[in-house]
Amino acid sequence: MSGHRASAPFTEQWDHFDLEREGGVATVTLNRPERLNALTFEAYADLRDLLLELPHRDDTRALVLRGRGRGFCSGGDVDEIIGRTLEMTPDELLAFTRMTGEVIRAMRECPVPIIAGIQGTAAGAGAVLALAADFRVASRSARFAFLFTKVGLAGADMGAAYLLPRVVGLGHATRILMLGDTVDSAEAERVGLIDPPVEDDELDAAVDRLARRLAEGPAFAYAQTKALLSRELDMSLSGAIELEAMTQALLMRSEDYAEFHAAFTGRREPRWKGR
Amino acid sequence: MSGHRASAPFTEQWDHFDLEREGGVATVTLNRPERLNALTFEAYADLRDLLLELPHRDDTRALVLRGRGRGFCSGGDVDEIIGRTLEMTPDELLAFTRMTGEVIRAMRECPVPIIAGIQGTAAGAGAVLALAADFRVASRSARFAFLFTKVGLAGADMGAAYLLPRVVGLGHATRILMLGDTVDSAEAERVGLIDPPVEDDELDAAVDRLARRLAEGPAFAYAQTKALLSRELDMSLSGAIELEAMTQALLMRSEDYAEFHAAFTGRREPRWKGR
Amino acid sequence: MSGHRASAPFTEQWDHFDLEREGGVATVTLNRPERLNALTFEAYADLRDLLLELPHRDDTRALVLRGRGRGFCSGGDVDEIIGRTLEMTPDELLAFTRMTGEVIRAMRECPVPIIAGIQGTAAGAGAVLALAADFRVASRSARFAFLFTKVGLAGADMGAAYLLPRVVGLGHATRILMLGDTVDSAEAERVGLIDPPVEDDELDAAVDRLARRLAEGPAFAYAQTKALLSRELDMSLSGAIELEAMTQALLMRSEDYAEFHAAFTGRREPRWKGR
Repeated sequence: MSGHRASAPFTEQWDHFDLEREGGVATVTLNRPERLNALTFEAYADLRDLLLELPHRDDTRALVLRGRGRGFCSGGDVDEIIGRTLEMTPDELLAFTRMTGEVIRAMRECPVPIIAGIQGTAAGAGAVLALAADFRVASRSARFAFLFTKVGLAGADMGAAYLLPRVVGLGHATRILMLGDTVDSAEAERVGLIDPPVEDDELDAAVDRLARRLAEGPAFAYAQTKALLSRELDMSLSGAIELEAMTQALLMRSEDYAEFHAAFTGRREPRWKGR
Repeated sequence: MSGHRASAPFTEQWDHFDLEREGGVATVTLNRPERLNALTFEAYADLRDLLLELPHRDDTRALVLRGRGRGFCSGGDVDEIIGRTLEMTPDELLAFTRMTGEVIRAMRECPVPIIAGIQGTAAGAGAVLALAADFRVASRSARFAFLFTKVGLAGADMGAAYLLPRVVGLGHATRILMLGDTVDSAEAERVGLIDPPVEDDELDAAVDRLARRLAEGPAFAYAQTKALLSRELDMSLSGAIELEAMTQALLMRSEDYAEFHAAFTGRREPRWKGR
Repeated sequence: MSGHRASAPFTEQWDHFDLEREGGVATVTLNRPERLNALTFEAYADLRDLLLELPHRDDTRALVLRGRGRGFCSGGDVDEIIGRTLEMTPDELLAFTRMTGEVIRAMRECPVPIIAGIQGTAAGAGAVLALAADFRVASRSARFAFLFTKVGLAGADMGAAYLLPRVVGLGHATRILMLGDTVDSAEAERVGLIDPPVEDDELDAAVDRLARRLAEGPAFAYAQTKALLSRELDMSLSGAIELEAMTQALLMRSEDYAEFHAAFTGRREPRWKGR
């Protein structure tokens, strides 16, 4: 997964969220707990930029997205975002809505698996961030509010009307996006948006366990699985089958595939290299 | 959502179902309870024409589809439809099957949200009408029979083989459409075709409540949500995200978006205008 | 459904699985129970060839896929497949992965409905064979393991990353394909991969009952239902509705459609001819 980087420097400091890197796991923590981690213009831009840089680095095998405090992310701030968009010209508005969409597109196209660890509120853009993650590890207090129509906007924001029907089916997605009502963890589980939730005090451990597993596993295989899951939503069966044949032929030349066979015949655990 | 209408007059009287308009809600009631509201050629044509006229009027913010009596709609009448199709030439047959498909296409492309209120039987074309609605409010007695193979036809009628897999997944859709067996309300809930059903004597109230909520809400936002949910089933992720960015930039110039902000900062309920 | 066959002979003997034909039902039984019916290169090739021949014969109205013994199919054999692929050149690898994909493509494009009867393990390619069937009749002991990442390959094999999200939704599919963990029958039912499982000693009877029903039913209608379910995953709504209109117009000229009407008006059961 080694990326090509030429003149552009990496960003050394991220000002609009906390970022920790440890053992192949990068953890983004939205850190405005007093506003339920509401997003600002700058936070969107930093998320976009981080997601585009990440594949160019060789040090990240799993990305965790968290919110500090009792909520995950309450979405765009009413004052700092909605208030200011009211004064924007059409081209400024499009520049903003495009940026938010680029965050979601980058999440889906980034080869690194993304885990959202969700407690409390995931609202508006926060709900879409959770939706675009590969894994949603949620606690019992998690609740999702795709509340866009409640502010007078379309319930189709940042790709939500593309992604949600493909996760929970068109019927549930229509109700959830059209009405914008809050979906608690029990309903989220019922419709297939999340797996059975964990207790709130077990969320950190559950997220860590999954992140570590992904970071220690066959990263190249994971990256290709994610890429194909995402791209094949937009492909025909015959194209998809050809793409999978190509992918597996390539991966059968990888070190990890040979390592599996050596470990299996040697009756030991494989040591994955991610290449 | 104001439509452009030039020389073509609006239809003043619909002969093949009952139509009521009240408070922004148009209610179509199939009214042949003695035949479980079986459809005739003319009922299909009237449904198609109403759905194409509706977006050209400015007075409808929600459409309700009901059936009088103990069933919703038993589909094409065996005598009046199947009997007569046996004597048709190929071009006549295609004119008929195209018309039925146009009803479903118009339901999906109509910007007005559509609620099907379902008690008892929704069979054949009646099941597809329910499937194509945005909201299925069903009572415990509701049962769906995509029974096309049982009359010797494909279980793919009026778009059912497109829509059902996108609502309940390909596995359930294959069983339901291939075998044509009746799906009761418990199974319909289990597979995600409906939300938890209401009691039969509460169906009217539940339908009214949802219709009124839609009619009193931000109609432009609802219309765009519906349009994107429908169109993005046929789009790629990157196209969908661009479309959503465009849509939201446009809606951020709407009166309802400003009204939300004014109401929020003024600590009052928004008064939606639908523009 | 009568196929066109010219010079190419039919295969008289299949060496790499058992094949029985009775009453319009062809049953393939993978028969290496001591290896949990692991697949060999030759078994893949025979599956592909059988599926391509089947539509050219007029004698098969349902295909059953079974595994002898306590498991369904454990996928590609670690020794006979993985070991040998390690020594292959890139073009040889692609020839192999393409062949496996052709099996799945042929399953989806074959007009004959396919039933997988699943007890015990369905792993790797065995899980994808089950996934690509039209009907999965599973017993309580059934467990699915899309374990590709565990051998260092992408969790996208033979079309799994195309099919699974369309059956169980993108969220469940991501977890199942990325991690490769075993899905037992309770979880498979919860996510919509299977219907409620039967008891293990009732599996044979349940499979037979469904196969006989399909073989005795309106085969042309079933074939078209399957074809449209499969093709419309890759089509737009408007294309799908037009295709369904064409299909039904054609089937309204079929003998089975007339037979339904004659039977209905004569108050007797229809005698389906499949044409």
